[in-house]
Amino acid sequence: MTRRLMEGSEAIAEAAIAAGCRFFAGYPMTPFTELLESFAKKLPGVGGVCVNAESELESIGMAWGALATGARAATGSTGQGIALMQESLSEITRAELPLVLFHMARGQSDYYQATRGGGHGDYRHLVFAPIDLEEATRLVQHAFDLADRWRNPVQIYGDYLLAHTAEAVEIEALRFDPLPPKDWAVDGSLGGTGRARNINPIGMEKGRKGIEPEPFWKRLQAKHDAMERELPRFEAEQTQDAELVVVAFGTLARFARHVVRALRREGRRVGYFRPVTLWPFPSDALRNAVRGAARVAVLEMNAGQMIDDVRLAVLGAAPVVPIGGISHDHSGFGVGPALEPASIVARIADVYGGREAA
Amino acid sequence: MTRRLMEGSEAIAEAAIAAGCRFFAGYPMTPFTELLESFAKKLPGVGGVCVNAESELESIGMAWGALATGARAATGSTGQGIALMQESLSEITRAELPLVLFHMARGQSDYYQATRGGGHGDYRHLVFAPIDLEEATRLVQHAFDLADRWRNPVQIYGDYLLAHTAEAVEIEALRFDPLPPKDWAVDGSLGGTGRARNINPIGMEKGRKGIEPEPFWKRLQAKHDAMERELPRFEAEQTQDAELVVVAFGTLARFARHVVRALRREGRRVGYFRPVTLWPFPSDALRNAVRGAARVAVLEMNAGQMIDDVRLAVLGAAPVVPIGGISHDHSGFGVGPALEPASIVARIADVYGGREAA
Amino acid sequence: MTRRLMEGSEAIAEAAIAAGCRFFAGYPMTPFTELLESFAKKLPGVGGVCVNAESELESIGMAWGALATGARAATGSTGQGIALMQESLSEITRAELPLVLFHMARGQSDYYQATRGGGHGDYRHLVFAPIDLEEATRLVQHAFDLADRWRNPVQIYGDYLLAHTAEAVEIEALRFDPLPPKDWAVDGSLGGTGRARNINPIGMEKGRKGIEPEPFWKRLQAKHDAMERELPRFEAEQTQDAELVVVAFGTLARFARHVVRALRREGRRVGYFRPVTLWPFPSDALRNAVRGAARVAVLEMNAGQMIDDVRLAVLGAAPVVPIGGISHDHSGFGVGPALEPASIVARIADVYGGREAA
Amino acid sequence: MTRRLMEGSEAIAEAAIAAGCRFFAGYPMTPFTELLESFAKKLPGVGGVCVNAESELESIGMAWGALATGARAATGSTGQGIALMQESLSEITRAELPLVLFHMARGQSDYYQATRGGGHGDYRHLVFAPIDLEEATRLVQHAFDLADRWRNPVQIYGDYLLAHTAEAVEIEALRFDPLPPKDWAVDGSLGGTGRARNINPIGMEKGRKGIEPEPFWKRLQAKHDAMERELPRFEAEQTQDAELVVVAFGTLARFARHVVRALRREGRRVGYFRPVTLWPFPSDALRNAVRGAARVAVLEMNAGQMIDDVRLAVLGAAPVVPIGGISHDHSGFGVGPALEPASIVARIADVYGGREAA
Repeated sequence: MTRRLMEGSEAIAEAAIAAGCRFFAGYPMTPFTELLESFAKKLPGVGGVCVNAESELESIGMAWGALATGARAATGSTGQGIALMQESLSEITRAELPLVLFHMARGQSDYYQATRGGGHGDYRHLVFAPIDLEEATRLVQHAFDLADRWRNPVQIYGDYLLAHTAEAVEIEALRFDPLPPKDWAVDGSLGGTGRARNINPIGMEKGRKGIEPEPFWKRLQAKHDAMERELPRFEAEQTQDAELVVVAFGTLARFARHVVRALRREGRRVGYFRPVTLWPFPSDALRNAVRGAARVAVLEMNAGQMIDDVRLAVLGAAPVVPIGGISHDHSGFGVGPALEPASIVARIADVYGGREAA
Repeated sequence: MTRRLMEGSEAIAEAAIAAGCRFFAGYPMTPFTELLESFAKKLPGVGGVCVNAESELESIGMAWGALATGARAATGSTGQGIALMQESLSEITRAELPLVLFHMARGQSDYYQATRGGGHGDYRHLVFAPIDLEEATRLVQHAFDLADRWRNPVQIYGDYLLAHTAEAVEIEALRFDPLPPKDWAVDGSLGGTGRARNINPIGMEKGRKGIEPEPFWKRLQAKHDAMERELPRFEAEQTQDAELVVVAFGTLARFARHVVRALRREGRRVGYFRPVTLWPFPSDALRNAVRGAARVAVLEMNAGQMIDDVRLAVLGAAPVVPIGGISHDHSGFGVGPALEPASIVARIADVYGGREAA
Repeated sequence: MTRRLMEGSEAIAEAAIAAGCRFFAGYPMTPFTELLESFAKKLPGVGGVCVNAESELESIGMAWGALATGARAATGSTGQGIALMQESLSEITRAELPLVLFHMARGQSDYYQATRGGGHGDYRHLVFAPIDLEEATRLVQHAFDLADRWRNPVQIYGDYLLAHTAEAVEIEALRFDPLPPKDWAVDGSLGGTGRARNINPIGMEKGRKGIEPEPFWKRLQAKHDAMERELPRFEAEQTQDAELVVVAFGTLARFARHVVRALRREGRRVGYFRPVTLWPFPSDALRNAVRGAARVAVLEMNAGQMIDDVRLAVLGAAPVVPIGGISHDHSGFGVGPALEPASIVARIADVYGGREAA
Repeated sequence: MTRRLMEGSEAIAEAAIAAGCRFFAGYPMTPFTELLESFAKKLPGVGGVCVNAESELESIGMAWGALATGARAATGSTGQGIALMQESLSEITRAELPLVLFHMARGQSDYYQATRGGGHGDYRHLVFAPIDLEEATRLVQHAFDLADRWRNPVQIYGDYLLAHTAEAVEIEALRFDPLPPKDWAVDGSLGGTGRARNINPIGMEKGRKGIEPEPFWKRLQAKHDAMERELPRFEAEQTQDAELVVVAFGTLARFARHVVRALRREGRRVGYFRPVTLWPFPSDALRNAVRGAARVAVLEMNAGQMIDDVRLAVLGAAPVVPIGGISHDHSGFGVGPALEPASIVARIADVYGGREAA
């Protein structure tokens, strides 16, 4: 396949289909709408199905049903719609179904929603926050693989910039290790001798009567603990001798990386760190990366959410200073002037020079 | 009024009504059901209205409407139902409406939901977690006062034990400073000269066209920053010279306090700290409380959620060790054997003796 | 009570409350909205409850629940909303609950909906179509009495003119024969010895397991047969020697009656007949009224619906000719020019003179 | 194609697909469930889509959307679910969209629902009631053709017997006259010069602002008048010299036809008449068929609904006597003992001998 100019939404849908996604349901909401439209155009051609549901509650319900049959299925929305899905997201995690959830966010203020959720009980989602379209088309494929491998939902936290910017991309179908058969999927049989494990993967509470809650929850916690150990990913540059390390995620990290590189060229000892997985947060890697730093600066476009995870990683070893904040362009969804490169340089200079207290 | 034996749900409803609550809507779900029933019995007698809605989505929608008229109104549920309300909770915060939300939780694993939410965007709720019924009947009244004073939702995070245990209580109507008039409430007028400020308090996005998003969100953030400074509450005992401080919240803190008092009587230098507000978390108070301690032990009945806030407060000054975990009684809602006093004593002893690593 | 100038919606709500209605739920839709608003204003003052539900599906669900407790309860809408209620209307009839349904129609084209329904199975509603506000305030009270007496829904088929015209009315509380106790109502008890008949009046299928369907349906049919014999009401004038009888219903009948009186003054042998109950249709009375007539003219503001019932009554004894049709004023809800008195006179003259074939 | 043993639901789905149906949405309810399952199995294989929606409200909404794009689309349910669809059915008729609605009824007591509807306003559906599977597979294809030709919904009124009985059938794809292009369908364009007629076929009220209601409704009425003239279908046997004509519809007519044939063999002068279209009812044909008859007997499995249409056709020319009624087998859906052939013979004999009054 050759490189082709595509809008982000289109490329992401193609990557999902390349990964075997055959069912998608969603309800339009900017900036998610174009992703739904892309699936609607592309899925029928591969024998798949895309449904424009009547609300986000219905769309996640439909994806849930498709997943229970063993299909690779996904849904998505923007923050508001994902808020509506919280009960289902929690139950689907408990049912151990491999949902892939596309979150095309309005900015970065849904970090808590993505990493702590708003569903009930203890549950966790693997969350990927791609920096650009090229990374996104690979992470989307990993998302489907890891969702199946861990039997756990995976969220792609994208945004307006990722969904609506056209880039020249080449979608390369990745190869993954074989997966165990989905012997838990419903197939219409009622569980005879040859189908002993055909339990109902609809949910712990509804479908697995007779299961004791405490051992079940402990097993789920153990799985999430293992995910926390094995799945963190990050990108780092020039942290070795950095006096100041800038931490950013998602497409905004592109601005941060650009600024750090420019400052390095000027001889400033700054480094750059980006969590690729928002959960599990790469805490150990960050702790190492900031080992000699005098300060850690957190760039995020919200009132301060990821900074919790940065502080939890650094644990007082260096002051952690916010250099982002609320700043929006005219659409209300994109990056505002206060977070553009020139402003970021100025903020970093302030922190670097110690003019701003932690 | 004299002391009377009442089940928690009944006492909480009475306290809410004493505070002027005149509208309640909910959908039954254990252990919230009895609270709904208590409001249904008591509200008509004071000229109020209680509606058994068709789902939690409807119940919060009705409370939203009632609030917009200036009434003191509330809704509630348990974790699952509150998960369904996340989009509305986020919008109501943005509409600056004084919702009181009764969360009768199944255990303590909805701490993230209560403190970080699952709605979209940056928003915060004041969260009270009462230790017993006596405190609950006072905090409920403060909730209505503070919701109005800050024009922000307040959550009461209760549980099975709080809702279903009968205690002898006397509900004393508290007196609060006068509040400004609710000149923002809809009253059917269309905003003539005498009613210039009658904006539509339904929501930022829908009702306040023409408002620039960025300044609005910054104002909201400034309000939440002020709440974070002014509203933290806590209870602490014997932390002055403590080598080990036990942190716990809600009704489970009763077990922790009991154990700490018993260990003190045996000469062990242990202290007790309880956040009364889960958000804002009383970080400064906790930091002071653990100033000389060698260890901080966190007792919570979940896979580890509040421990984030404890670590964010302590910031590496002392090791923070979990001594709780998932443990349930037969109902699946109450405290299990692993968190009963004898077990807690054993766990504290382990940490105290340094046998367990942080 | 003295005569007072009131809009129709207000007077109707007052009549319902005078009849003991204490619960009302609805969803706004013109021209029903003002009736909902009137109940919302008046019910709290008598200890009643009015709920603005989230759709007509919810509003009838709430009324259903209120009825099951033995309360006098009502809901309503206009044609579109009543279309949404059809499944519930059918089930409520089968549950034998005394619903009063206020239909503030947009014109007269919902006659089939009112008399044949769109629910499933064999079921019937008593339908009153008042000619004016004075009659409406009496029929509303009869509706509550007859709904209880027959344990069957009763519909008030009103319209824009009835709801929105202000007239000077005096609402006189009517007195009715005592009713049997509602020993079928749910009261929270589980049906011990003293409460043997406390079956669950939620519905035949859901609540009365063990009941054989066929005998149940036959008993329901027998009840509807009895209603058909006992409940027809009509108004007739000058039919004795009429060569032409004009049949009309609801507020449009006022125009017909006015024209017939005027034509009589001119010596034309015309008569007037109005079904007060659309179901049961007063077929015997109409058959008698047209006994010597050469022609029957049907005035209705729709494509021809009541004319079925007129033909079923007359059964070929005289030609039945439509003189109404689709005609609307600017609102789309009120009577259009083609049905105003002058036009009606012309149409009657045509039929009278035999210029129009049956 | 050769004759193959198939259950009715399967054969009906195949006929629909042979007619070009490519979208189906439904919600399970006996005896409709198997039809939904058949579409779910067969549609993906022809590039079509079948959605198990979250309720009948959603399923008709989805079919509505599919129809608006010009696709051949259908939905269905049993009486209860169709009751829920009444508002949409009325609006879809007004939007002039070619919906095919599969009604797998529980018995025959939804005749009013099918022929008079429960939606709002004046609207009509063509209704086919097949006597057996062979006829059904042809009428289903006519349904799609006529829906497009008249731009009006068509209902197939089937039942338990039709849906669940297996017969050997051969589905022959019928050929129809060419249809005009669907230039009214939405295609994403905004109506430039080349697309002048791309109006929004979502509904009169919502999508065609600026259209005057009265002319629109009159045009719709004229269309329904034309359908009433052109579309009636019926089946009749031995009515020429019949003293008694038995009228029946749907699968129950098979019993009637069987009995009439047997009685003829015994020399009794009985005839048989079946409306194939319930609306428009074949009134002229029936009037002719009973011209010399002394009595007309109506066999229907309900409390008396079609008898209205029979009386409206006969208009007093002969007594019309019900010989059916409520009678169910154990399932509650099938024909009960009182309507089996032996009972029908006895009832006919009664009427024939004049023992039963009209």
